Amino acid sequence: MHSSDILADPAHLPQAGAAHPFDQAIRLEAAGEGRLRGATHPEYWNQVGPFGGITAAVMLESVLRQPQRLGDPLSLTVNYAGPVREGGYVIETKLVRSNRTTQHWSMELVQGPDREVAISAIAVFALRRDTYSLTEASPPPAPPADQCHRVRGRTDLPWLAHYDMRYVRGKPMHENEDSVTHLWVGDLPPRPLDFASLAAICDVFFPRLYLRRPKFVPIGTVSLNVYFHRSGEAIARHGAHHVLATAHGQVVSAGFFDQQGQIWSHDGDLLATTHQIVWFKE
Amino acid sequence: MHSSDILADPAHLPQAGAAHPFDQAIRLEAAGEGRLRGATHPEYWNQVGPFGGITAAVMLESVLRQPQRLGDPLSLTVNYAGPVREGGYVIETKLVRSNRTTQHWSMELVQGPDREVAISAIAVFALRRDTYSLTEASPPPAPPADQCHRVRGRTDLPWLAHYDMRYVRGKPMHENEDSVTHLWVGDLPPRPLDFASLAAICDVFFPRLYLRRPKFVPIGTVSLNVYFHRSGEAIARHGAHHVLATAHGQVVSAGFFDQQGQIWSHDGDLLATTHQIVWFKE
Repeated sequence: MHSSDILADPAHLPQAGAAHPFDQAIRLEAAGEGRLRGATHPEYWNQVGPFGGITAAVMLESVLRQPQRLGDPLSLTVNYAGPVREGGYVIETKLVRSNRTTQHWSMELVQGPDREVAISAIAVFALRRDTYSLTEASPPPAPPADQCHRVRGRTDLPWLAHYDMRYVRGKPMHENEDSVTHLWVGDLPPRPLDFASLAAICDVFFPRLYLRRPKFVPIGTVSLNVYFHRSGEAIARHGAHHVLATAHGQVVSAGFFDQQGQIWSHDGDLLATTHQIVWFKE
Repeated sequence: MHSSDILADPAHLPQAGAAHPFDQAIRLEAAGEGRLRGATHPEYWNQVGPFGGITAAVMLESVLRQPQRLGDPLSLTVNYAGPVREGGYVIETKLVRSNRTTQHWSMELVQGPDREVAISAIAVFALRRDTYSLTEASPPPAPPADQCHRVRGRTDLPWLAHYDMRYVRGKPMHENEDSVTHLWVGDLPPRPLDFASLAAICDVFFPRLYLRRPKFVPIGTVSLNVYFHRSGEAIARHGAHHVLATAHGQVVSAGFFDQQGQIWSHDGDLLATTHQIVWFKE
């Protein structure tokens, strides 16, 4: 017998008709000490694998679900080590170290009888405190979301149907002067923001390369980093409003390019900052 | 008997009088499959532990030393899980996944008979290719390094003696209008740049908080991220010139603040971009 106990057929996972597709897509069930079982979801599928943002969200969810978890997410790094194949997976979590106010976790998403690692991630969770605070960054100028035109992306990429994106600046697949993009983003159907959906939104940006060189080439995020700057209560207060997201790239070199971004609440709070490095095929 | 075999007394590590202190500080010796033994070095000591940059460098070095290592560093994330105590440590490396052009590693620095994890890290290594390239970011304006005044930091922090820092913009421990800092940095004594020293340089910046609020409070980096944008050959060509480093913070909130930075070669190549999130005590 193969070690198929660590695999789940999506059909075997509990399906709740009423749940938001996002919640279905990040649903995990306990599968032993620190292990959780999930499955890819067709509605968040990208071209050849799941949308990278939904994978980031489920890696974070695997720690949010842990009973020993302390505080809220502070930092998440997700390395996309190999393709996540359609079907079941197991996330193995490890509490690396627990301190008085911070906790360090590592997580791996494994698939198949050989338990091959598709995703390798580390995260810091922390208790937040009332302290001196200062936001040096400024939200990008943008008209209200409802005054911006919705851009519908490629209909052959299922995950795009689950985001309402309203571009304010930056035109994908055009030779823009720079790669700076501002857009309003919200889940579809609308869903109150939480840490998992915020992590996913950090990966909704059009690949920076396509804003400078309008030529389609295969691309794939290699590593995604998210810093969370607000408490769970602050994020809950945001509700189901759209967030204002901005991103730009610094460099394209030797088969890779970077991206850095900010996610702002509708009323001007910097909720998260994010960075990624992306592979592209020439 | 305790599992003290995984520990090394610094006195037992080979000391080569001729080696640069940086090379002494990141020296590792094989200690079994994927395991390497090292020790903290007094010359890179900070206030209550090693300089965070030297720790980032030795985590990277632990993979650079692996015979199965493919290509050059692309991405490194170092989570400072707990204090690194003076003395010996072991770095346990794991090759998470090896693809045709990328390789994913995870590393833990452990100390003590309980093998407590002080540092948790993940890295991506990659083969670089000649492709379309574009640098959207611009190096900050700065006079040549030799026309800038060297700022000598606190003499009670040994690691500061090993960097020649020449500030161009941003005055630490002053209420600056923003946290933007530009400085020239070089190893002391001069040493040709490589991936390990570049990783260390990503952590030389004065804490962003001190550039906005000139009040000393304890701080500690929680997570450091580095993206390497150039090949080993390009970095070697840079030689022992100073690099031009720039950093700014986006937000201070709830006991933590962020920092993002760029490291430019003396002749205008963007060598690395870096991000970190830092804890502070109010």
